[in-house]
Amino acid sequence: MSIKAIVFDANGTLFDIQSVASVTEEAFPGRGEIITQIWRLKQLEYTWLRSLMGRYEDFSVITRDSLVYTLRTLGLAYDADVFARIMDKYLHLDLYDDARQALASLKAYRLAILSNGSTEMLTTLIRNTGLDKTLDATISIDAKRIFKPSPEAYSLVEERLGVAPAEIVFVSSNPWDAIGAKSFGFTTAWIERVTPRAIAAAYEPGDVVPALTMFQALRMQMDELGVIPDHRVHGLSALAGLLGARTGA
Amino acid sequence: MSIKAIVFDANGTLFDIQSVASVTEEAFPGRGEIITQIWRLKQLEYTWLRSLMGRYEDFSVITRDSLVYTLRTLGLAYDADVFARIMDKYLHLDLYDDARQALASLKAYRLAILSNGSTEMLTTLIRNTGLDKTLDATISIDAKRIFKPSPEAYSLVEERLGVAPAEIVFVSSNPWDAIGAKSFGFTTAWIERVTPRAIAAAYEPGDVVPALTMFQALRMQMDELGVIPDHRVHGLSALAGLLGARTGA
Repeated sequence: MSIKAIVFDANGTLFDIQSVASVTEEAFPGRGEIITQIWRLKQLEYTWLRSLMGRYEDFSVITRDSLVYTLRTLGLAYDADVFARIMDKYLHLDLYDDARQALASLKAYRLAILSNGSTEMLTTLIRNTGLDKTLDATISIDAKRIFKPSPEAYSLVEERLGVAPAEIVFVSSNPWDAIGAKSFGFTTAWIERVTPRAIAAAYEPGDVVPALTMFQALRMQMDELGVIPDHRVHGLSALAGLLGARTGA
Repeated sequence: MSIKAIVFDANGTLFDIQSVASVTEEAFPGRGEIITQIWRLKQLEYTWLRSLMGRYEDFSVITRDSLVYTLRTLGLAYDADVFARIMDKYLHLDLYDDARQALASLKAYRLAILSNGSTEMLTTLIRNTGLDKTLDATISIDAKRIFKPSPEAYSLVEERLGVAPAEIVFVSSNPWDAIGAKSFGFTTAWIERVTPRAIAAAYEPGDVVPALTMFQALRMQMDELGVIPDHRVHGLSALAGLLGARTGA
Protein backbone atom coordinates (compact mmCIF):
# COMPACT_ATOMS: atom_id res chain seq x y z
CA MET A 1 0.00 0.00 0.00
CA SER A 2 1.49 3.35 -0.95
CA ILE A 3 1.23 6.48 1.19
CA LYS A 4 -1.03 9.21 -0.22
CA ALA A 5 -1.35 11.72 2.61
CA ILE A 6 0.63 13.00 5.58
CA VAL A 7 -1.50 14.25 8.46
CA PHE A 8 0.01 16.34 11.23
CA ASP A 9 -1.03 17.09 14.73
CA ALA A 10 -0.91 20.86 15.31
CA ASN A 11 -0.14 21.84 18.92
CA GLY A 12 3.33 20.68 19.91
CA THR A 13 4.00 19.11 16.52
CA LEU A 14 3.94 21.93 13.93
CA PHE A 15 3.27 24.73 16.41
CA ASP A 16 5.47 25.35 19.40
CA ILE A 17 3.12 25.61 22.37
CA GLN A 18 6.09 26.56 24.54
CA SER A 19 6.17 29.82 22.60
CA VAL A 20 3.30 30.87 24.90
CA ALA A 21 5.99 31.27 27.57
CA SER A 22 7.09 34.59 26.07
CA VAL A 23 3.71 36.05 27.00
CA THR A 24 3.22 34.26 30.35
CA GLU A 25 6.72 35.30 31.43
CA GLU A 26 5.97 38.90 30.57
CA ALA A 27 2.73 38.77 32.55
CA PHE A 28 4.20 36.82 35.50
CA PRO A 29 7.99 37.25 35.62
CA GLY A 30 9.78 34.17 36.93
CA ARG A 31 6.69 31.98 36.48
CA GLY A 32 6.28 31.94 32.71
CA GLU A 33 7.54 28.41 32.08
CA ILE A 34 5.80 26.69 34.98
CA ILE A 35 2.51 28.27 33.89
CA THR A 36 2.84 26.80 30.40
CA GLN A 37 3.63 23.34 31.77
CA ILE A 38 0.68 23.13 34.17
CA TRP A 39 -1.58 24.72 31.59
CA ARG A 40 -0.70 22.07 29.00
CA LEU A 41 -1.04 19.20 31.48
CA LYS A 42 -4.54 20.29 32.52
CA GLN A 43 -5.58 21.25 29.00
CA LEU A 44 -5.00 17.66 27.91
CA GLU A 45 -6.62 16.20 31.02
CA TYR A 46 -9.71 18.31 30.40
CA THR A 47 -10.02 17.11 26.78
CA TRP A 48 -9.99 13.54 28.03
CA LEU A 49 -12.27 14.09 31.03
CA ARG A 50 -14.86 16.06 29.08
CA SER A 51 -14.83 13.46 26.30
CA LEU A 52 -15.39 10.68 28.81
CA MET A 53 -18.12 12.53 30.71
CA GLY A 54 -19.92 13.35 27.46
CA ARG A 55 -19.55 17.07 28.24
CA TYR A 56 -17.78 18.30 25.17
CA GLU A 57 -16.83 21.95 24.97
CA ASP A 58 -14.56 23.18 22.25
CA PHE A 59 -10.82 23.61 22.69
CA SER A 60 -11.00 27.35 23.28
CA VAL A 61 -13.22 26.77 26.34
CA ILE A 62 -10.88 24.05 27.61
CA THR A 63 -7.84 26.23 27.00
CA ARG A 64 -9.45 29.05 28.97
CA ASP A 65 -10.60 26.80 31.84
CA SER A 66 -7.21 25.13 32.18
CA LEU A 67 -5.53 28.54 32.30
CA VAL A 68 -7.91 29.59 35.09
CA TYR A 69 -7.00 26.41 36.97
CA THR A 70 -3.29 27.05 36.47
CA LEU A 71 -3.32 30.62 37.74
CA ARG A 72 -5.55 29.64 40.67
CA THR A 73 -3.27 26.74 41.64
CA LEU A 74 -0.23 28.98 41.50
CA GLY A 75 -2.10 31.69 43.41
CA LEU A 76 -1.50 34.36 40.78
CA ALA A 77 -3.93 37.29 40.60
CA TYR A 78 -4.78 38.55 37.12
CA ASP A 79 -7.14 40.93 35.39
CA ALA A 80 -9.13 40.44 32.19
CA ASP A 81 -6.53 42.15 30.01
CA VAL A 82 -3.66 39.93 31.13
CA PHE A 83 -5.83 36.85 30.72
CA ALA A 84 -6.90 37.90 27.21
CA ARG A 85 -3.29 38.61 26.19
CA ILE A 86 -2.17 35.14 27.25
CA MET A 87 -5.12 33.47 25.54
CA ASP A 88 -4.47 35.43 22.35
CA LYS A 89 -0.99 33.93 22.06
CA TYR A 90 -2.67 30.57 21.42
CA LEU A 91 -3.86 32.04 18.11
CA HIS A 92 -0.34 33.22 17.29
CA LEU A 93 1.81 30.25 18.23
CA ASP A 94 5.21 30.09 16.58
CA LEU A 95 5.88 27.41 14.00
CA TYR A 96 8.76 25.11 14.87
CA ASP A 97 11.90 26.05 12.96
CA ASP A 98 11.80 22.89 10.87
CA ALA A 99 8.05 22.97 10.06
CA ARG A 100 7.94 25.10 6.92
CA GLN A 101 10.76 23.37 5.13
CA ALA A 102 9.54 19.93 6.13
CA LEU A 103 6.10 20.63 4.68
CA ALA A 104 7.69 21.95 1.47
CA SER A 105 9.74 18.75 1.14
CA LEU A 106 6.56 16.65 1.34
CA LYS A 107 4.64 18.42 -1.43
CA ALA A 108 4.29 15.15 -3.38
CA TYR A 109 1.74 14.04 -0.76
CA ARG A 110 -1.56 15.49 0.28
CA LEU A 111 -0.90 17.38 3.51
CA ALA A 112 -3.35 18.02 6.31
CA ILE A 113 -3.72 18.86 9.98
CA LEU A 114 -5.94 16.95 12.39
CA SER A 115 -6.15 18.86 15.64
CA ASN A 116 -8.04 19.06 18.90
CA GLY A 117 -8.19 22.82 18.25
CA SER A 118 -11.54 24.30 17.32
CA THR A 119 -12.15 25.24 13.68
CA GLU A 120 -12.02 28.89 14.61
CA MET A 121 -8.72 28.60 16.51
CA LEU A 122 -7.16 26.56 13.71
CA THR A 123 -8.32 28.83 10.91
CA THR A 124 -6.81 31.83 12.68
CA LEU A 125 -3.59 30.01 13.52
CA ILE A 126 -3.11 28.69 9.99
CA ARG A 127 -3.78 32.09 8.48
CA ASN A 128 -1.44 33.82 10.93
CA THR A 129 1.41 31.52 9.90
CA GLY A 130 0.58 31.35 6.19
CA LEU A 131 0.20 27.56 6.27
CA ASP A 132 -3.15 27.84 4.48
CA LYS A 133 -1.22 27.95 1.21
CA THR A 134 0.59 24.69 1.95
CA LEU A 135 -2.08 22.48 3.49
CA ASP A 136 -4.77 20.63 1.56
CA ALA A 137 -7.03 20.43 4.63
CA THR A 138 -7.20 21.64 8.20
CA ILE A 139 -9.44 19.31 10.16
CA SER A 140 -10.76 20.07 13.62
CA ILE A 141 -12.15 17.30 15.77
CA ASP A 142 -15.02 19.63 16.68
CA ALA A 143 -17.23 18.09 13.99
CA LYS A 144 -17.30 14.92 16.16
CA ARG A 145 -17.45 16.67 19.54
CA ILE A 146 -14.95 14.25 21.01
CA PHE A 147 -11.20 14.70 21.39
CA LYS A 148 -8.25 12.58 20.39
CA PRO A 149 -7.39 9.77 21.06
CA SER A 150 -10.99 8.72 20.40
CA PRO A 151 -11.16 6.73 17.13
CA GLU A 152 -14.03 9.00 16.11
CA ALA A 153 -11.67 11.96 16.02
CA TYR A 154 -9.16 10.16 13.79
CA SER A 155 -11.96 8.90 11.50
CA LEU A 156 -12.44 12.48 10.27
CA VAL A 157 -9.32 12.20 8.13
CA GLU A 158 -10.80 9.59 5.79
CA GLU A 159 -14.12 11.46 5.71
CA ARG A 160 -12.47 14.72 4.70
CA LEU A 161 -9.58 13.54 2.51
CA GLY A 162 -11.15 10.43 1.05
CA VAL A 163 -7.93 8.57 1.81
CA ALA A 164 -7.97 5.24 3.65
CA PRO A 165 -6.13 4.95 7.00
CA ALA A 166 -3.65 2.48 5.49
CA GLU A 167 -2.55 5.16 2.99
CA ILE A 168 -1.90 7.78 5.66
CA VAL A 169 1.11 8.64 7.78
CA PHE A 170 0.13 10.47 10.94
CA VAL A 171 2.74 12.66 12.59
CA SER A 172 2.68 13.80 16.21
CA SER A 173 5.13 14.76 18.91
CA ASN A 174 2.56 13.95 21.59
CA PRO A 175 3.15 10.35 22.71
CA TRP A 176 -0.53 9.66 23.55
CA ASP A 177 -1.55 11.06 20.13
CA ALA A 178 0.95 8.97 18.20
CA ILE A 179 -0.38 5.95 20.12
CA GLY A 180 -4.01 6.90 19.49
CA ALA A 181 -3.38 7.31 15.78
CA LYS A 182 -1.57 3.96 15.59
CA SER A 183 -4.36 2.31 17.55
CA PHE A 184 -6.85 3.71 15.03
CA GLY A 185 -4.96 2.26 12.08
CA PHE A 186 -2.64 4.94 10.72
CA THR A 187 1.05 4.43 10.13
CA THR A 188 2.52 6.78 12.70
CA ALA A 189 5.68 8.81 13.15
CA TRP A 190 6.43 10.08 16.62
CA ILE A 191 8.53 13.25 16.66
CA GLU A 192 10.79 12.91 19.67
CA ARG A 193 12.29 16.38 19.64
CA VAL A 194 14.52 15.87 22.63
CA THR A 195 15.42 12.65 24.39
CA PRO A 196 15.15 13.69 28.03
CA ARG A 197 17.95 12.70 30.36
CA ALA A 198 16.66 10.30 32.98
CA ILE A 199 15.99 12.16 36.23
CA ALA A 200 18.08 9.68 38.24
CA ALA A 201 21.11 10.50 36.11
CA ALA A 202 20.77 14.23 36.79
CA TYR A 203 19.72 14.28 40.47
CA GLU A 204 21.02 12.44 43.49
CA PRO A 205 18.49 10.57 45.64
CA GLY A 206 16.85 13.05 47.99
CA ASP A 207 17.82 16.07 45.84
CA VAL A 208 15.02 18.45 44.96
CA VAL A 209 13.85 17.77 41.41
CA PRO A 210 12.49 21.04 39.99
CA ALA A 211 8.86 20.85 38.88
CA LEU A 212 9.79 22.34 35.53
CA THR A 213 12.36 19.63 34.81
CA MET A 214 9.90 16.95 35.81
CA PHE A 215 7.09 18.29 33.62
CA GLN A 216 9.43 18.58 30.65
CA ALA A 217 10.55 14.98 31.10
CA LEU A 218 6.98 13.75 31.38
CA ARG A 219 5.90 15.52 28.20
CA MET A 220 8.56 13.76 26.15
CA GLN A 221 8.40 10.18 27.38
CA MET A 222 6.69 7.56 25.26
CA ASP A 223 3.72 6.13 27.12
CA GLU A 224 3.05 2.55 28.17
CA LEU A 225 -0.30 1.81 26.57
CA GLY A 226 0.37 -1.42 24.74
CA VAL A 227 0.72 0.30 21.33
CA ILE A 228 3.99 1.50 19.80
CA PRO A 229 4.20 4.09 16.99
CA ASP A 230 5.81 2.76 13.79
CA HIS A 231 8.58 5.36 13.58
CA ARG A 232 10.48 7.59 15.93
CA VAL A 233 12.25 10.57 14.38
CA HIS A 234 14.01 13.50 15.99
CA GLY A 235 12.51 16.33 13.97
CA LEU A 236 10.08 17.11 11.17
CA SER A 237 13.00 17.39 8.74
CA ALA A 238 13.56 13.64 9.03
CA LEU A 239 10.14 12.82 7.56
CA ALA A 240 11.05 13.19 3.88
CA GLY A 241 13.88 10.71 4.26
CA LEU A 242 11.68 8.32 6.17
CA LEU A 243 8.96 8.44 3.52
CA GLY A 244 11.46 8.24 0.68
CA ALA A 245 12.75 5.05 2.18
CA ARG A 246 9.19 3.75 2.54
CA THR A 247 7.90 4.62 -0.92
CA GLY A 248 11.16 3.50 -2.52
CA ALA A 249 10.91 0.09 -0.86
CA MET B 1 -35.87 12.86 48.14
CA SER B 2 -34.16 11.11 51.05
CA ILE B 3 -30.70 9.59 50.87
CA LYS B 4 -30.57 5.79 50.96
CA ALA B 5 -26.97 4.95 50.15
CA ILE B 6 -23.49 6.42 50.50
CA VAL B 7 -21.05 5.33 47.82
CA PHE B 8 -17.33 5.85 48.26
CA ASP B 9 -14.47 6.04 45.84
CA ALA B 10 -11.67 3.75 47.05
CA ASN B 11 -8.19 4.92 46.05
CA GLY B 12 -7.36 8.22 47.68
CA THR B 13 -10.72 8.43 49.43
CA LEU B 14 -10.94 5.47 51.84
CA PHE B 15 -7.50 4.06 51.05
CA ASP B 16 -4.36 6.12 51.33
CA ILE B 17 -2.52 5.63 48.05
CA GLN B 18 0.38 7.62 49.47
CA SER B 19 0.94 4.69 51.80
CA VAL B 20 2.67 3.07 48.82
CA ALA B 21 5.54 5.46 49.53
CA SER B 22 6.72 3.29 52.43
CA VAL B 23 7.55 0.55 49.94
CA THR B 24 8.84 2.74 47.09
CA GLU B 25 11.10 4.60 49.53
CA GLU B 26 12.51 1.32 50.80
CA ALA B 27 13.16 0.16 47.24
CA PHE B 28 14.52 3.52 46.03
CA PRO B 29 15.74 5.62 48.97
CA GLY B 30 15.24 9.34 48.44
CA ARG B 31 12.84 8.79 45.55
CA GLY B 32 9.89 7.14 47.23
CA GLU B 33 7.52 10.10 47.19
CA ILE B 34 8.23 11.32 43.67
CA ILE B 35 7.64 7.78 42.38
CA THR B 36 4.18 7.68 43.96
CA GLN B 37 3.24 11.08 42.50
CA ILE B 38 4.25 10.30 38.91
CA TRP B 39 2.78 6.83 39.21
CA ARG B 40 -0.60 8.22 40.26
CA LEU B 41 -0.60 10.92 37.58
CA LYS B 42 0.06 8.41 34.82
CA GLN B 43 -2.24 5.76 36.30
CA LEU B 44 -5.14 8.19 35.96
CA GLU B 45 -4.09 9.36 32.50
CA TYR B 46 -3.96 5.76 31.32
CA THR B 47 -7.48 5.02 32.59
CA TRP B 48 -8.76 7.98 30.58
CA LEU B 49 -6.68 7.32 27.46
CA ARG B 50 -7.50 3.62 27.31
CA SER B 51 -11.20 4.37 27.85
CA LEU B 52 -11.17 6.89 25.01
CA MET B 53 -9.22 4.64 22.65
CA GLY B 54 -11.55 1.74 23.35
CA ARG B 55 -8.58 -0.29 24.61
CA TYR B 56 -9.72 -1.20 28.08
CA GLU B 57 -7.39 -3.19 30.28
CA ASP B 58 -8.17 -3.67 33.92
CA PHE B 59 -6.72 -1.48 36.67
CA SER B 60 -4.02 -3.96 37.62
CA VAL B 61 -2.58 -3.76 34.08
CA ILE B 62 -2.77 0.02 34.12
CA THR B 63 -1.17 0.17 37.56
CA ARG B 64 1.68 -2.02 36.35
CA ASP B 65 2.18 -0.09 33.09
CA SER B 66 2.18 3.29 34.82
CA LEU B 67 4.77 2.02 37.31
CA VAL B 68 6.96 0.87 34.40
CA TYR B 69 6.60 4.34 32.87
CA THR B 70 7.49 6.00 36.17
CA LEU B 71 10.65 3.99 36.80
CA ARG B 72 11.72 4.40 33.17
CA THR B 73 11.19 8.19 33.27
CA LEU B 74 13.17 8.46 36.47
CA GLY B 75 15.85 6.17 35.07
CA LEU B 76 15.65 3.70 37.94
CA ALA B 77 16.78 0.13 37.33
CA TYR B 78 14.75 -2.60 39.03
CA ASP B 79 14.38 -6.34 39.12
CA ALA B 80 11.23 -8.44 39.15
CA ASP B 81 11.26 -8.84 42.95
CA VAL B 82 11.37 -5.12 43.65
CA PHE B 83 8.67 -4.49 41.08
CA ALA B 84 6.43 -7.20 42.57
CA ARG B 85 6.93 -5.86 46.10
CA ILE B 86 5.82 -2.36 45.07
CA MET B 87 2.82 -3.68 43.14
CA ASP B 88 1.80 -5.84 46.07
CA LYS B 89 1.44 -2.76 48.29
CA TYR B 90 -1.49 -1.74 46.10
CA LEU B 91 -3.34 -4.73 47.55
CA HIS B 92 -2.40 -3.68 51.08
CA LEU B 93 -3.06 0.05 51.07
CA ASP B 94 -3.61 1.63 54.46
CA LEU B 95 -7.04 2.92 55.34
CA TYR B 96 -7.17 6.61 56.16
CA ASP B 97 -7.30 7.18 59.92
CA ASP B 98 -10.84 8.51 59.76
CA ALA B 99 -12.26 5.84 57.42
CA ARG B 100 -13.32 3.10 59.84
CA GLN B 101 -15.08 5.36 62.30
CA ALA B 102 -16.74 7.36 59.51
CA LEU B 103 -18.18 4.20 57.99
CA ALA B 104 -19.41 3.05 61.42
CA SER B 105 -21.17 6.39 61.93
CA LEU B 106 -23.05 5.96 58.65
CA LYS B 107 -24.48 2.51 59.38
CA ALA B 108 -28.04 3.80 58.90
CA TYR B 109 -27.36 3.97 55.17
CA ARG B 110 -26.43 1.33 52.67
CA LEU B 111 -22.69 1.65 52.14
CA ALA B 112 -20.76 0.77 49.02
CA ILE B 113 -17.57 1.35 47.07
CA LEU B 114 -17.45 2.20 43.38
CA SER B 115 -13.88 1.98 42.19
CA ASN B 116 -11.73 1.92 39.07
CA GLY B 117 -9.94 -0.99 40.74
CA SER B 118 -10.47 -4.45 39.29
CA THR B 119 -12.76 -6.85 41.15
CA GLU B 120 -9.77 -8.94 42.11
CA MET B 121 -7.78 -5.97 43.47
CA LEU B 122 -10.79 -4.66 45.38
CA THR B 123 -11.73 -8.00 46.88
CA THR B 124 -8.21 -8.46 48.20
CA LEU B 125 -7.97 -4.90 49.47
CA ILE B 126 -11.33 -5.04 51.23
CA ARG B 127 -10.52 -8.36 52.83
CA ASN B 128 -7.06 -7.19 53.92
CA THR B 129 -8.60 -4.23 55.74
CA GLY B 130 -11.69 -6.03 57.08
CA LEU B 131 -14.06 -3.64 55.32
CA ASP B 132 -15.99 -6.56 53.86
CA LYS B 133 -17.93 -6.69 57.14
CA THR B 134 -18.99 -3.04 56.87
CA LEU B 135 -19.83 -2.59 53.18
CA ASP B 136 -23.02 -3.71 51.49
CA ALA B 137 -21.38 -3.80 48.09
CA THR B 138 -17.98 -3.38 46.46
CA ILE B 139 -18.47 -2.43 42.86
CA SER B 140 -15.69 -2.45 40.28
CA ILE B 141 -16.12 -0.60 37.01
CA ASP B 142 -14.65 -3.63 35.25
CA ALA B 143 -18.14 -4.95 34.46
CA LYS B 144 -18.48 -2.01 32.04
CA ARG B 145 -14.89 -2.03 30.77
CA ILE B 146 -14.71 1.76 30.92
CA PHE B 147 -13.28 3.91 33.70
CA LYS B 148 -14.68 6.81 35.67
CA PRO B 149 -15.70 9.54 34.89
CA SER B 150 -17.67 7.78 32.12
CA PRO B 151 -21.39 7.81 33.03
CA GLU B 152 -21.44 4.08 32.27
CA ALA B 153 -19.13 3.48 35.22
CA TYR B 154 -21.34 5.42 37.64
CA SER B 155 -24.46 3.69 36.30
CA LEU B 156 -23.29 0.48 37.95
CA VAL B 157 -24.37 1.77 41.35
CA GLU B 158 -28.05 1.76 40.51
CA GLU B 159 -27.73 -1.60 38.76
CA ARG B 160 -26.09 -3.20 41.80
CA LEU B 161 -27.79 -1.44 44.71
CA GLY B 162 -31.18 -0.82 43.12
CA VAL B 163 -31.04 2.73 44.45
CA ALA B 164 -31.74 5.70 42.16
CA PRO B 165 -28.97 8.31 41.61
CA ALA B 166 -31.05 10.97 43.37
CA GLU B 167 -31.02 8.85 46.55
CA ILE B 168 -27.25 8.47 46.58
CA VAL B 169 -24.45 10.53 48.03
CA PHE B 170 -21.16 9.88 46.28
CA VAL B 171 -17.96 10.61 48.18
CA SER B 172 -14.56 11.16 46.59
CA SER B 173 -11.38 13.05 47.35
CA ASN B 174 -10.45 13.03 43.66
CA PRO B 175 -11.70 16.30 42.13
CA TRP B 176 -12.33 14.81 38.66
CA ASP B 177 -14.27 11.91 40.26
CA ALA B 178 -16.45 14.17 42.40
CA ILE B 179 -17.18 16.15 39.22
CA GLY B 180 -17.90 13.02 37.18
CA ALA B 181 -20.28 11.73 39.83
CA LYS B 182 -22.10 15.07 40.03
CA SER B 183 -22.27 15.24 36.23
CA PHE B 184 -23.86 11.76 36.27
CA GLY B 185 -26.55 12.80 38.73
CA PHE B 186 -25.37 11.89 42.23
CA THR B 187 -25.30 14.28 45.12
CA THR B 188 -21.58 14.58 45.73
CA ALA B 189 -19.26 15.31 48.61
CA TRP B 190 -15.69 16.21 47.79
CA ILE B 191 -13.21 15.34 50.53
CA GLU B 192 -10.64 18.10 50.48
CA ARG B 193 -8.17 16.63 52.94
CA VAL B 194 -5.70 19.47 52.80
CA THR B 195 -6.16 22.91 51.31
CA PRO B 196 -2.87 23.41 49.54
CA ARG B 197 -1.09 26.70 50.01
CA ALA B 198 -0.90 28.55 46.71
CA ILE B 199 2.53 28.08 45.16
CA ALA B 200 2.98 31.84 44.70
CA ALA B 201 2.58 32.34 48.45
CA ALA B 202 5.32 29.83 49.23
CA TYR B 203 7.88 30.52 46.47
CA GLU B 204 9.32 33.75 45.11
CA PRO B 205 9.19 34.28 41.34
CA GLY B 206 12.10 32.44 39.77
CA ASP B 207 12.58 30.17 42.80
CA VAL B 208 12.75 26.48 42.08
CA VAL B 209 9.40 24.88 42.87
CA PRO B 210 10.04 21.24 43.84
CA ALA B 211 8.25 18.72 41.63
CA LEU B 212 6.89 17.00 44.73
CA THR B 213 5.25 20.18 46.02
CA MET B 214 3.77 20.89 42.61
CA PHE B 215 2.32 17.40 42.19
CA GLN B 216 0.81 17.50 45.68
CA ALA B 217 -0.83 20.85 44.90
CA LEU B 218 -2.21 19.60 41.59
CA ARG B 219 -3.72 16.51 43.18
CA MET B 220 -5.75 18.59 45.64
CA GLN B 221 -7.09 21.42 43.50
CA MET B 222 -10.69 21.37 42.36
CA ASP B 223 -10.89 21.21 38.58
CA GLU B 224 -12.45 23.66 36.17
CA LEU B 225 -14.87 21.49 34.23
CA GLY B 226 -18.10 23.44 34.51
CA VAL B 227 -19.50 21.19 37.26
CA ILE B 228 -19.15 21.78 41.00
CA PRO B 229 -19.61 19.09 43.65
CA ASP B 230 -22.46 19.79 46.09
CA HIS B 231 -20.40 19.62 49.25
CA ARG B 232 -16.81 20.16 50.27
CA VAL B 233 -15.72 18.62 53.55
CA HIS B 234 -12.31 18.29 55.12
CA GLY B 235 -12.41 14.67 56.16
CA LEU B 236 -14.57 11.55 56.14
CA SER B 237 -15.56 12.23 59.75
CA ALA B 238 -17.55 15.28 58.61
CA LEU B 239 -19.93 13.17 56.52
CA ALA B 240 -22.25 12.07 59.33
CA GLY B 241 -22.86 15.68 60.32
CA LEU B 242 -23.42 16.69 56.73
CA LEU B 243 -25.95 13.92 56.18
CA GLY B 244 -27.63 14.49 59.49
CA ALA B 245 -28.18 18.07 58.45
CA ARG B 246 -29.52 16.90 55.11
CA THR B 247 -31.91 14.22 56.30
CA GLY B 248 -33.06 16.40 59.16
CA ALA B 249 -33.98 19.21 56.77
